[in-house]
Amino acid sequence: MRRHLNLLSNEPAETLLYTPEPARTAHIMTESFIIDARWIIPVVPARTCLLDHAIVVRAGRIESIQPSQGARADNPDLTAVNLPTHTVIPGLINAHGHAAMTLLRGYADDRELMDWLENHIWPAEARHVSPAFSYDGTTLAVAEMIRTGTTFAVDSYWFPDETAKAYADNHFRAQVCMPLIQFPNAWAKTEDEHLQKAAELHEQYRNHSLVRTAIAPHAPYTVTDDGFIKAKEQSLQYNVPIHLHLHETRGECEDALKDSGKRPFKRIDELGLMDHHLQTVHMTQLTENEIATLASSGAHVVHCPESNLKLASGFCPVGGLLDAGVNVCVGTDSAASNNNLDMIEELRTAALLAKGTALDPTTVDAHTALELATINGARMLGMADEIGSLEPGKAADLVAIDMAAINFQPMHDPVSQVVYASSGHQVSDVWISGKRLLDEGQFTQLDEVALRQRVQAWLERMQA
Amino acid sequence: MRRHLNLLSNEPAETLLYTPEPARTAHIMTESFIIDARWIIPVVPARTCLLDHAIVVRAGRIESIQPSQGARADNPDLTAVNLPTHTVIPGLINAHGHAAMTLLRGYADDRELMDWLENHIWPAEARHVSPAFSYDGTTLAVAEMIRTGTTFAVDSYWFPDETAKAYADNHFRAQVCMPLIQFPNAWAKTEDEHLQKAAELHEQYRNHSLVRTAIAPHAPYTVTDDGFIKAKEQSLQYNVPIHLHLHETRGECEDALKDSGKRPFKRIDELGLMDHHLQTVHMTQLTENEIATLASSGAHVVHCPESNLKLASGFCPVGGLLDAGVNVCVGTDSAASNNNLDMIEELRTAALLAKGTALDPTTVDAHTALELATINGARMLGMADEIGSLEPGKAADLVAIDMAAINFQPMHDPVSQVVYASSGHQVSDVWISGKRLLDEGQFTQLDEVALRQRVQAWLERMQA
Repeated sequence: MRRHLNLLSNEPAETLLYTPEPARTAHIMTESFIIDARWIIPVVPARTCLLDHAIVVRAGRIESIQPSQGARADNPDLTAVNLPTHTVIPGLINAHGHAAMTLLRGYADDRELMDWLENHIWPAEARHVSPAFSYDGTTLAVAEMIRTGTTFAVDSYWFPDETAKAYADNHFRAQVCMPLIQFPNAWAKTEDEHLQKAAELHEQYRNHSLVRTAIAPHAPYTVTDDGFIKAKEQSLQYNVPIHLHLHETRGECEDALKDSGKRPFKRIDELGLMDHHLQTVHMTQLTENEIATLASSGAHVVHCPESNLKLASGFCPVGGLLDAGVNVCVGTDSAASNNNLDMIEELRTAALLAKGTALDPTTVDAHTALELATINGARMLGMADEIGSLEPGKAADLVAIDMAAINFQPMHDPVSQVVYASSGHQVSDVWISGKRLLDEGQFTQLDEVALRQRVQAWLERMQA
Repeated sequence: MRRHLNLLSNEPAETLLYTPEPARTAHIMTESFIIDARWIIPVVPARTCLLDHAIVVRAGRIESIQPSQGARADNPDLTAVNLPTHTVIPGLINAHGHAAMTLLRGYADDRELMDWLENHIWPAEARHVSPAFSYDGTTLAVAEMIRTGTTFAVDSYWFPDETAKAYADNHFRAQVCMPLIQFPNAWAKTEDEHLQKAAELHEQYRNHSLVRTAIAPHAPYTVTDDGFIKAKEQSLQYNVPIHLHLHETRGECEDALKDSGKRPFKRIDELGLMDHHLQTVHMTQLTENEIATLASSGAHVVHCPESNLKLASGFCPVGGLLDAGVNVCVGTDSAASNNNLDMIEELRTAALLAKGTALDPTTVDAHTALELATINGARMLGMADEIGSLEPGKAADLVAIDMAAINFQPMHDPVSQVVYASSGHQVSDVWISGKRLLDEGQFTQLDEVALRQRVQAWLERMQA
């Protein structure tokens, strides 16, 4: 929601405990190994589950997927990771969030939206958000995402230079969205200054192996027509996506109709933004005509089911969008309105809610739910050749879930078990670009003790 | 849904691997200890979270809850369980399920209801359900429920003598519902035979410390008026509840209206069943008048949000029911339509869905969500003096969640973290009547290896 209307204070918050760890991820493309797994769900080809197969990874990329028998003999130079009771899936793609707001998890719940924002979230942000807040909060989110099987985050927040650094320092993939908003704040004072800073950060990360950028005009009600037009120009200039909160609530549509005579969707379309570069988030209010326009334009929809439920924003018509051919992805939104970043939980909620609202239990089946959180995300990012499925040539972004737990018995169907029966907390191992970030539930790179100390310091400061 | 229309075969299924373990829970009332916890959410008194308090347990009952400081000195004879990073909540009450169907978890998903039942679930049950299936499936469910923080299950299934034995053998609390259905099946041939067998089992368990019984006419469309009247008589005779699927789908109401001129709710009311003994399950179709009748009658509603979503049954108006003063509880339904028995996940889904459908984010706040799954369940069971909250004199049914995990940071609000941020898989310890059944995530009583072997044998048989 209107989370970006928060830093109305112009005073820079003082820096607190801002001691980023040195990057430990220098050798990211040299990872080679074999994973020998009981089950593999590659997502592409669709509706497939492989039994007793091996994934051969060389230099961080999937070289082949072949039956386990013979795989080690064929690759005598590689060490093997045995996952005898596990299912391996592609790393999950969290298509919308505000990672640093994880520091505000549980800070204020169960409130009317404007009460929540005006009396709780925005004042807290005005007091505390700083470069260090963005860096530490993003690192906290990265830790939770690694722990629960996510390998890519789409993120919009203040001080995107710091959030980008947090992702890069932790060897985590991200699309860092450069905020654009007409109100002055601690990051920038005018729309033009936002765009200037965005351009600088685009330049800085344009060749980064893990972190990409996008331009993120916040929402129709917080960005001018001029801002949207310039955002579109910048998007074309840098060939980067536009990420936009759109039609999150009925009130947003009604207010715009009253003030301008048109729904926000129509305004965005008329401004020329409705194409495959556009990532629209929430979309709980959609007419049949708007769905058809989305489909023909190639614009993407990010569905955030738990945030939409928790804030009582409305229901995104996921089944209807998919039937129309729209590319639908899934995101958690921030931990302040969710309140976790567990994408396995989120994709299950997406599947269940799609059935319930469509009054059709065949809507968004288990395979489709997994696609929403993997290959569809990759398509939205323009990275379908790189991530989102387990295919030879793609990056080795891998997640293993240990199905030995009692809640997975009996194993009638591994795909059903992952989508409907599991929790992100049952993820055992995570690799990004072949680098193992989680090993049997333990972080291999991230300094959890230091992170906890920083988070605890933020808590004490916010409670003071 | 119509899960009980399944055993139309009259042939008794052969017994498979039916080797119940000897009961290991003889000394259930001799447990005395102190729990020293960082946070305690007692549920009663309402909206309370205690910091650094101790729970003194003697002979399986809560003797006192007092500040940690001094608690050990006051009770030098007791050993202490240190839970320095944990939140302790009352054991969760799963108010509706078919535990043995856990053996059918993931057996058939994402199908139209009648396709699912007629072509998958019922044929599988007709082939496989037996006393051993009921015992082993219930034991599997008990294992998952202990692992994820549930201490009481309301259960309806075939061979309730076997399910009751499975609960008792594993020192787990249950309301075992005696099925009543007009169609002949492997358990009984006529309504009268169902009632006769129910009476026998009532007698067997009437003084059991953990297992209680209820009479469960399946649904309005599977039980005759005569069956309902006799069920009510038996309910009064034994002073036990009536547990009934009611208004699960719109189709159920429309069919009844067409066939009989009245909605099922009206028929049940006219038959004299609508009082505080009645536990109505699902209730996705309710008029304002029906809600008022529920409230004035004292009948209870069990909300099964994930099953209702997965089967696309409709939405129970939880906020409206609570506003009217109806006692609302939460259940998972069976793992064949959920597909897990994680009550922490279920109560979060209940809270989120209530907000979303009411279009009001203040509906079912975190404290209320926890009440639905604890004290409200105890009220429905007529056990509000015994379980459902952490109060002196009540049984020590306790669940600890380790909040040290990264997804609980920062700890702004422990109640919010339990309801909105956690998973049942983060439960560390479980006690029922003071007996520790889960110790740092490990079963203390249940023979997990033997259970897995039995479940694997069932899987192989079902896949043959």
